[in-house]
Amino acid sequence: LTGAPISKMSSHAPSLLRTAEIIAVGSEMLGATRLDTNSLFIADRLAAIGIQLVAKSVVGDQRSRLTELCRGALSRADLVILTGGLGPTDDDLTREAVAEVLGRRLIEDPAIVARIEQRFARRGLPMPSINRRQAQVLEGARSLENPNGTAPGQVAEHGSQVIVLLPGPPRELQPMLDALCQQTLAPRAGGARIYRASLFVTGRSESHVDETVQPIYSTWRGRTPPIETTILAAPGQIELHLSLRGTDAAEAETTLGAAREQLVAVLGDDVFSTDGASMEEVVGRLLHARGFMLAAAESCTGGLLLSRLTDVPGSSAYVAGGAVTYSNELKTELAGVPAESIATHGAVSEPVAVALAEGIRERTQAHVGVGITGIAGPGGGSPEKPVGTVAIAVATPLAAARVRTFVFAGGRAQIKLFATQAALDMVRRALA
Amino acid sequence: LTGAPISKMSSHAPSLLRTAEIIAVGSEMLGATRLDTNSLFIADRLAAIGIQLVAKSVVGDQRSRLTELCRGALSRADLVILTGGLGPTDDDLTREAVAEVLGRRLIEDPAIVARIEQRFARRGLPMPSINRRQAQVLEGARSLENPNGTAPGQVAEHGSQVIVLLPGPPRELQPMLDALCQQTLAPRAGGARIYRASLFVTGRSESHVDETVQPIYSTWRGRTPPIETTILAAPGQIELHLSLRGTDAAEAETTLGAAREQLVAVLGDDVFSTDGASMEEVVGRLLHARGFMLAAAESCTGGLLLSRLTDVPGSSAYVAGGAVTYSNELKTELAGVPAESIATHGAVSEPVAVALAEGIRERTQAHVGVGITGIAGPGGGSPEKPVGTVAIAVATPLAAARVRTFVFAGGRAQIKLFATQAALDMVRRALA
Repeated sequence: LTGAPISKMSSHAPSLLRTAEIIAVGSEMLGATRLDTNSLFIADRLAAIGIQLVAKSVVGDQRSRLTELCRGALSRADLVILTGGLGPTDDDLTREAVAEVLGRRLIEDPAIVARIEQRFARRGLPMPSINRRQAQVLEGARSLENPNGTAPGQVAEHGSQVIVLLPGPPRELQPMLDALCQQTLAPRAGGARIYRASLFVTGRSESHVDETVQPIYSTWRGRTPPIETTILAAPGQIELHLSLRGTDAAEAETTLGAAREQLVAVLGDDVFSTDGASMEEVVGRLLHARGFMLAAAESCTGGLLLSRLTDVPGSSAYVAGGAVTYSNELKTELAGVPAESIATHGAVSEPVAVALAEGIRERTQAHVGVGITGIAGPGGGSPEKPVGTVAIAVATPLAAARVRTFVFAGGRAQIKLFATQAALDMVRRALA
Repeated sequence: LTGAPISKMSSHAPSLLRTAEIIAVGSEMLGATRLDTNSLFIADRLAAIGIQLVAKSVVGDQRSRLTELCRGALSRADLVILTGGLGPTDDDLTREAVAEVLGRRLIEDPAIVARIEQRFARRGLPMPSINRRQAQVLEGARSLENPNGTAPGQVAEHGSQVIVLLPGPPRELQPMLDALCQQTLAPRAGGARIYRASLFVTGRSESHVDETVQPIYSTWRGRTPPIETTILAAPGQIELHLSLRGTDAAEAETTLGAAREQLVAVLGDDVFSTDGASMEEVVGRLLHARGFMLAAAESCTGGLLLSRLTDVPGSSAYVAGGAVTYSNELKTELAGVPAESIATHGAVSEPVAVALAEGIRERTQAHVGVGITGIAGPGGGSPEKPVGTVAIAVATPLAAARVRTFVFAGGRAQIKLFATQAALDMVRRALA
């Protein structure tokens, strides 16, 4: 039975494919510079047909480790996808390793040899003899055509499981996987897919968010199908990711929408995004909706606030620009901060932050002005104003200027990022 | 023996640590968007002390799969490093999974509880009770201090093997791993280490650099030990990385230094860094050496140039600040660009770039002025000035202002980055 051609699978009424593992083969992905990015594409395509990726591994071109990882994956997942190691050279070992694990022979397919020969002939070249190895197919497996390269893929049944071999180069792997998902994997995945929702939260710690949402999560545990939840601390924000396996798109969206509303109800306006939009996109939409232009005078963030806002396409509709006022002289020259105010309160102070926000707003004729002044470190801190102290002010036509002083932890890059996130969040709350 | 404190390891004369596996824990890294980048840092640091990474895996927050992968890794590698899953919440399972695999208990360490409580107290908060979980330490393991977060790491001996638990956030993991490598892992790795050198090149394509250096690389192939070479296209720069395994530091440094000089001889002043320094650090050093202050007027880069320069500690000594002149009005108001010049030549033009550079230099009294104006896209392009067109000018006291027009390929973020890299490189060449 294990040797039966894959095309007969449906007549065996096999069990559903629900879980998958990926093994990427290649020593180059174990160094300090290169990651296995194929797994992102594969995870996306599998999720779309309701197959959940449960683990993934990278292994070098070393046969014993590869066979062990392959055995492990087959002990856990319904579907095992190997990528890479299908080239013509001696260190391309995936075919041999899988043959060993499945206890099958490799058989040369003359049709594949002919296709590879034609490929070389089109470039006026004879096929190097080492490329014959690429025509070796697992007994009972089906080969998958590769329009973009010499290495065909392979798909084999192993009891109720499926094992797939794909070439490593993305432009060869991607069309092959798309065809395989449509023709072979989707019909075996039961018609369900994974639906997702996310909420991004700011101004709370991960444990604070978790404590708040735990009682809600726990009421979801009993439902069928379950809503899977993940909480994640990203730079400047806490992310809640929900996912649900289902066959009815409308029903899944309704369920996730209701779940999202439950979370928003307890987290309130600390939730700044419910559609995956970044903070700079959310603020951009609010500015755009009101027809407001924004300007900023940045000291310790050095231009990062305006750079983030202008990362969003179309931001010229609501970003006027502003000033980077690293020196005290420029705070006065470009943003009109009174020199006395700096002398009296210090450059890092709430009055100076307000003067920066109001000064740049006036100078640029923008509706919204933001002022940021702080100590990004590592030098410049004092007992009263330690490294990480940042005063942020936001001036709008809607109310009196708001100002807050934060003390951020971390290195220079983190303090800059956290300060811009806090400033954007203050703009968001002022405009909401 | 397995329960003995790690500090006694050397007295057991254990076998050398030669191979390592990494297991990254977290469902968020199994989706379609996020990769495990910690493994790159870990691979780099292990290579530096002569330990080879032989496989790495990512597994979700699912205990049975995690324990299986952990058992598998322990069956193959001398050193197993787990990252992530040390948070305070229910789905942080790494401690429990490793305890199960090693057959040890978890014991709450009151000193760690106190440290976490202090961390919260500094922010004026009580410790949430769930954070107590982070004080659970494997029987016989040593905990590793985490100055940047609440989760301590752990290191435990298991026969002749070592197992390490590190927190997932890079800024927590990195200093912890560096300390662990130096104090605990390097002494057990046999004394050989990997010596490295790098050159960063700008203004040439990867294949152009590769063609130029291939003849030199090939003369190195025969030598013992070999110089390993990698060429890498990073955003805005091509990097050449050389490495050499050896036990004699002086000899290795001499060999690598000579190799580096051979490469610089053929690549000339397109090499901007031979010590790993970033472009913004290199430019900062040149400004500092001449006692110059820099100011910039940025349009399409939206503040990114000044933000990059001010990412470097101590940059207030040579960065005055500047203006983000997204609108035409602000180009005139903040950088003194004549409105006629914009009307005649268009906002994206060499005369306007020069006027931005000279205007901001005059306005801020800085020595060096940079002007950037361009079309970051996706909208705003035309047949004569397509998306990616950027005019950059640099004015210094040393010579007449220089100006160039580039056409960069890529999305909005790439075009912004490439434009700042080109501008910094023009400053570098003007000051060199």
